[in-house]
Amino acid sequence: MNTVLPRSVLIAPSGFKESLDANEVARAISAGARRVVPGLTVVTAPIADGGEGTARTLAEATGGTIVPLTVVGPVGQEVDSHIALLGGQAEGTAVVEMAAAAGLRLVPRDQRDPGATTTYGVGQLIAAALDAGAKRILVGCGDSGTSDGGAGALQALGARVLDSEGRDLPWGGSHLGRVARLDLSGLHPALRDGRVPVVLALNPHNLLTGERGVARVFGPQKGATPEQVEELSAGFETWASVLSRDCLEAARGTDFHTGAGTGASGGLGAGLAAVGARLTPRFEALLDSGLAGVDLDALVQEADLVVTAEGAIDFQTPRGKVPAEVARRAAARGVPVVGLAGTLGRGWRDVTDIGVDAVASIMPGPMTLAEAVDGAESLLADAAERLMRSLVLGAAVAERSAQRARTA
Amino acid sequence: MNTVLPRSVLIAPSGFKESLDANEVARAISAGARRVVPGLTVVTAPIADGGEGTARTLAEATGGTIVPLTVVGPVGQEVDSHIALLGGQAEGTAVVEMAAAAGLRLVPRDQRDPGATTTYGVGQLIAAALDAGAKRILVGCGDSGTSDGGAGALQALGARVLDSEGRDLPWGGSHLGRVARLDLSGLHPALRDGRVPVVLALNPHNLLTGERGVARVFGPQKGATPEQVEELSAGFETWASVLSRDCLEAARGTDFHTGAGTGASGGLGAGLAAVGARLTPRFEALLDSGLAGVDLDALVQEADLVVTAEGAIDFQTPRGKVPAEVARRAAARGVPVVGLAGTLGRGWRDVTDIGVDAVASIMPGPMTLAEAVDGAESLLADAAERLMRSLVLGAAVAERSAQRARTA
Repeated sequence: MNTVLPRSVLIAPSGFKESLDANEVARAISAGARRVVPGLTVVTAPIADGGEGTARTLAEATGGTIVPLTVVGPVGQEVDSHIALLGGQAEGTAVVEMAAAAGLRLVPRDQRDPGATTTYGVGQLIAAALDAGAKRILVGCGDSGTSDGGAGALQALGARVLDSEGRDLPWGGSHLGRVARLDLSGLHPALRDGRVPVVLALNPHNLLTGERGVARVFGPQKGATPEQVEELSAGFETWASVLSRDCLEAARGTDFHTGAGTGASGGLGAGLAAVGARLTPRFEALLDSGLAGVDLDALVQEADLVVTAEGAIDFQTPRGKVPAEVARRAAARGVPVVGLAGTLGRGWRDVTDIGVDAVASIMPGPMTLAEAVDGAESLLADAAERLMRSLVLGAAVAERSAQRARTA
Repeated sequence: MNTVLPRSVLIAPSGFKESLDANEVARAISAGARRVVPGLTVVTAPIADGGEGTARTLAEATGGTIVPLTVVGPVGQEVDSHIALLGGQAEGTAVVEMAAAAGLRLVPRDQRDPGATTTYGVGQLIAAALDAGAKRILVGCGDSGTSDGGAGALQALGARVLDSEGRDLPWGGSHLGRVARLDLSGLHPALRDGRVPVVLALNPHNLLTGERGVARVFGPQKGATPEQVEELSAGFETWASVLSRDCLEAARGTDFHTGAGTGASGGLGAGLAAVGARLTPRFEALLDSGLAGVDLDALVQEADLVVTAEGAIDFQTPRGKVPAEVARRAAARGVPVVGLAGTLGRGWRDVTDIGVDAVASIMPGPMTLAEAVDGAESLLADAAERLMRSLVLGAAVAERSAQRARTA
């Protein structure tokens, strides 16, 4: 068979949770694909989604560095955290991953009280980024374990969150019903004078208040009782009103109640918006803003084929997961897309509707999840090899079919 | 994407052991492939390999019938067995599956004494086929649990296997060292006068005696101790000499010691050769002879793509398994081949060397073998769907690649 091989492939995967980060996924796929087409031009664009692993993924992808930091965790404990200082075209950008300081994974199962957890550590990370001389800060929102409206983060940045008697509120969203005033006079100067832009990468569908407010939508999975959901919802109403009145001049006019993304990460969106942060749909922030050093659309345009991947491809994939975002951009440019997954779950077929033209699982046979996680790297490389072989063969089949049609 | 789709696919799979027979496998693959290319011309050629399931596979593929029969099993027990009377172009052919009367699965684990098991039931099946008016008989050899040189089968067909004092030998290969004479005077008349040709579908590499004789190669896996291997080997030497002298006139000149296939199914090859059976490489008998109603080469020639499948694709596949045979024939005609498997085991990649251009597992994610066996039909259909989608996409990728190369 003498068919045309793909010459250039863009590999734009997510990480595989608890197994491989997005860079490792991209490398494994690349290795497998090259076994089939040795001269293949491979461009890798590991995609962070704002949640866990975002800082590391972007640091490695841009040749940047990780700065380890110890901060206050969501239940007040000390946690080992980090920020990323990006390299390459994204030099000067610092990445703060909210989950690295206030993620759900940092909340011990027996302390899942969303009324008590704090984003204080997130504010510490932002302050550290400012103090490290960052020219701009990208804050990844996702996988949060908090519901404090970002009050804790503001406190760590020098703001005071006060009750009607001028006392500082303790940590936790359950106190927001008593908030009377936000005092930004002590705010970190780089924020107060707007010198360092802060961009939050978030899900814009998350709103702070109202029927679809964040306490009602996410509270229960963070451990809130029905009573707590109501308490948090009421508290967020008060908090949004205070933020509207006491925010920085630059943030005037923001709809802190139901503005897009105000509810992101338990209301961190609203809190940081009050000090001028731009609430940006996460893939726009991560892929289009230039902040993260990735211009996905340009890379897609130059590829014969785009390979994306995620730990699971299922009914949730179309709801804003990395493969959906990659496929949307590729489909808009007519570039074929394949998706690899550890598990093709319920609804896997539906991803063809959102532009993932073909999918494959990495499983070579019956095995346990633990075996699959342990062997993920080589399973993924082998699966990429098989997939690439199928694609190459598909061209040969089409050629034979066309030839037979001509001579028939 | 406006690419050429495959218009005709030949689906030529093996059965999946303990899960789906070859017809079921073919139907499931067909269903999945049609989801992707609705107008697809699908030809199914489920492939029997001579072993377990051969009679049913051929009966169903040709629109024939299964005739249930009760015969003597390998350890003397009564077993429910069957023969197939084929239909369609193979009308008049009866299929006897040796494993259905003397297969390893019919030998209870605690009675795995290869010196004692008998092929008597195989002879009963052949006699039943003759009495049913078969014009020709195809005997599938494979998955045997016996090592009696076919002596039991000959006895059931009216022959006498005698010691030096004229006494009938008891069942089992351990007695063959004492055989002195084969008396064919009572042989079934249809065999004696050669009216009904009998063709054995077997592995020609199995020889009755010598260093690579069947007792040495297969005895241990049938439960033989080292002493028994020597006893059986010596017995087969004697048996081959007796067969050479006392066989039917039509079988004169046969090399009963080391002729190709004489050792098939514990020496059943040699025993039946003595009454005129033709020992034929199994895929030649099953796919070329016309006996089984399949002309695989002609079907391959007319396909844009051949899909084969087996429960496992691994290092054993190239050693004469169905996918290897299908791929050999397709490769000779330049027809692309893909293979589907429940498990891609150690050495799966090597099948590309024998003409299987691409392979895929049917597993969508981590699961147990039992779950995979239970769900095999829908897993297989879904995997065929995904594979077909990859092939179609491959054509689109090649088109894009070629187009970009032209405009570059």
